[in-house]
Amino acid sequence: MAAAGTSGKTLEERLRLIEDRFAIYDLIARHPSSADTGAGEFVASVWAEDGVFDRGAEFPRPSGRAAIAAGSSNPEHHRAIEQGIAHFAGLPYVRIEGDRAVAISYLQILVPDRVGPIFEVPNHGASQGFHVHRVSANRWEFVRTSEGWKISRRTLRPLDGSAEARDILKSALEG
Amino acid sequence: MAAAGTSGKTLEERLRLIEDRFAIYDLIARHPSSADTGAGEFVASVWAEDGVFDRGAEFPRPSGRAAIAAGSSNPEHHRAIEQGIAHFAGLPYVRIEGDRAVAISYLQILVPDRVGPIFEVPNHGASQGFHVHRVSANRWEFVRTSEGWKISRRTLRPLDGSAEARDILKSALEG
Amino acid sequence: MAAAGTSGKTLEERLRLIEDRFAIYDLIARHPSSADTGAGEFVASVWAEDGVFDRGAEFPRPSGRAAIAAGSSNPEHHRAIEQGIAHFAGLPYVRIEGDRAVAISYLQILVPDRVGPIFEVPNHGASQGFHVHRVSANRWEFVRTSEGWKISRRTLRPLDGSAEARDILKSALEG
Repeated sequence: MAAAGTSGKTLEERLRLIEDRFAIYDLIARHPSSADTGAGEFVASVWAEDGVFDRGAEFPRPSGRAAIAAGSSNPEHHRAIEQGIAHFAGLPYVRIEGDRAVAISYLQILVPDRVGPIFEVPNHGASQGFHVHRVSANRWEFVRTSEGWKISRRTLRPLDGSAEARDILKSALEG
Repeated sequence: MAAAGTSGKTLEERLRLIEDRFAIYDLIARHPSSADTGAGEFVASVWAEDGVFDRGAEFPRPSGRAAIAAGSSNPEHHRAIEQGIAHFAGLPYVRIEGDRAVAISYLQILVPDRVGPIFEVPNHGASQGFHVHRVSANRWEFVRTSEGWKISRRTLRPLDGSAEARDILKSALEG
Repeated sequence: MAAAGTSGKTLEERLRLIEDRFAIYDLIARHPSSADTGAGEFVASVWAEDGVFDRGAEFPRPSGRAAIAAGSSNPEHHRAIEQGIAHFAGLPYVRIEGDRAVAISYLQILVPDRVGPIFEVPNHGASQGFHVHRVSANRWEFVRTSEGWKISRRTLRPLDGSAEARDILKSALEG
């Protein structure tokens, strides 16, 4: 097949890059569903064996697929789920280089309000509403394996004015 | 055209799958604009003739394109729009199988605060802010028709700790 | 290469349309990172030379790449960043026509709460939470240049019930 366009890539290579990108979109898109159901087995299936999940000094920093899956499905996490919780993912920025990829995305964690007035919105019912517990910057690192793309590292920092969150965001602006 | 890659699909088939996915992204991406303007005619154009929109026991459950469009553009809904309302869609997870597709997505509904203090953010003006009325799990079912992809069923449940919302999210983790 | 499918486009043309779309997704996906770090140089690199950024009568309306970059990285904006701020982008709707493209997207601006109670969410730590300062409708206009897709115009209006925001959203429902 002939090289195509300015990029010097074949159609096959370009198509593969697109499919890679969708695979990575889907890993990010499924994360809230997995977090909000405490799906340990699924979590284990999407991480690389030696993956690292870093939420900052405030939290444990599990290393290895099994430890990350355990942290995502422990009793404390299931308590959060029973009280109601929503991980909400924005549009990610994705950069793929061969068998490695990086994505920068934003994540909200929301919880139902348990106190305060009930608001009625016409045609949309009554609700106490939800509270945005945290908004964070995410840096995802992915690696292509024989079983598809896996998460090799995820770094998450709250957007509360701290330099660490800004450093994550700045890495989206390179290249 | 030769079969390509490990998937056994031709370039044409792979390209079509990508275009299908974008068609479905666009159906989800246009939903907030249609909901926040009460665009009944548009709503009718994106639903399958026998579509079902299920928001749970608390709400009516319109069946058929015309009933769904009517529910999305009724006077009560337009009252919500005039008071200010924003449907906000997160990154969806999409799975396509032939002429059927399923997407799981998160949706926020926000309304402007009408009470409480005004906050000034430097360079971003003053505002009473917005209140997150509800965060919901969405299950979208799509069908390919001679007029393109249409919504055949949409199920929406609030992420308030209830099992129904979690069941929707779990269906994103299969396969 | 043979024409493919019902669209009458070649594989090369279809592939290019997909790559164009991803280039535009990435411009929208990187915007929050650039806004939340005050990255003037990056801002200048993604706008067309004669771009216009219109946030409504309440705000200045910079015209030209240099003025827009200056407005995105001025001391007042950096003060907002130091206090904590998050621009949060929803899934955009994108329409490409040759060397022009339009996208309609939703944007939240959130800031950390500085007053009020601290909420503890099991497994997710303690936080005063974030406040949704504004939810806006965005209309992005893009132009293809010899250096790739650039933003030629961006119009942003709060979804507070005003007609101007609804007019932006309605433009997503055409075509």
